[in-house]
Amino acid sequence: MTAKPAATPAPPYYAVIFTSRRTDQDADEYAEMASTMEALAEAQPGYLGHESARDPDSGLGITVSYWDSEDAIRAWKAHVDHAAARRMGRERWYEVFAVRIARVERAYGWQR
Amino acid sequence: MTAKPAATPAPPYYAVIFTSRRTDQDADEYAEMASTMEALAEAQPGYLGHESARDPDSGLGITVSYWDSEDAIRAWKAHVDHAAARRMGRERWYEVFAVRIARVERAYGWQR
Repeated sequence: MTAKPAATPAPPYYAVIFTSRRTDQDADEYAEMASTMEALAEAQPGYLGHESARDPDSGLGITVSYWDSEDAIRAWKAHVDHAAARRMGRERWYEVFAVRIARVERAYGWQR
Repeated sequence: MTAKPAATPAPPYYAVIFTSRRTDQDADEYAEMASTMEALAEAQPGYLGHESARDPDSGLGITVSYWDSEDAIRAWKAHVDHAAARRMGRERWYEVFAVRIARVERAYGWQR
């Protein structure tokens, strides 16, 4: 698959911007959990898409997931498997993170 | 400097989510322009911070800049040097990109 921006519908919709720096622990375990959580998120009601990048030099990563409502975001946050993964994140995988919930009001794109 | 999430104030404020995939052209020239544009953005009225990551495997990059108003975002978009850089981006540096303008409504963070 070629990486590209998520194919989201016309605004308005919601974005969860998750910015983090990883610890240097458990790279394989983390990758496996991240992959599991991506698949689980994609199966949730109201999921529209996501984009993710991590810079190996700085360790900073940004994942943006897109949702059709704030209710969908709340339901995903409350999902029991996701809550367990977030707990592991605080215990082992992240040095620091920030979460921002935002309403996308305008969007445009361009392709070569 | 240790990479970390931008130190933004309490919401509401605005985010510009810029998601792109680079061409394989002009890595040095691109890095220089990106650095120049970061410094210029930081000097604009209403600038609150930014975060950036690019995955070298997938080529996908995400830059999120934060602003205190939509007017500040519009003024930065209209800046003549920024407009020239965006033109270069379409001509040479990007295969595809998406821009989303969003109002940050809630935010929280965590640090080890």
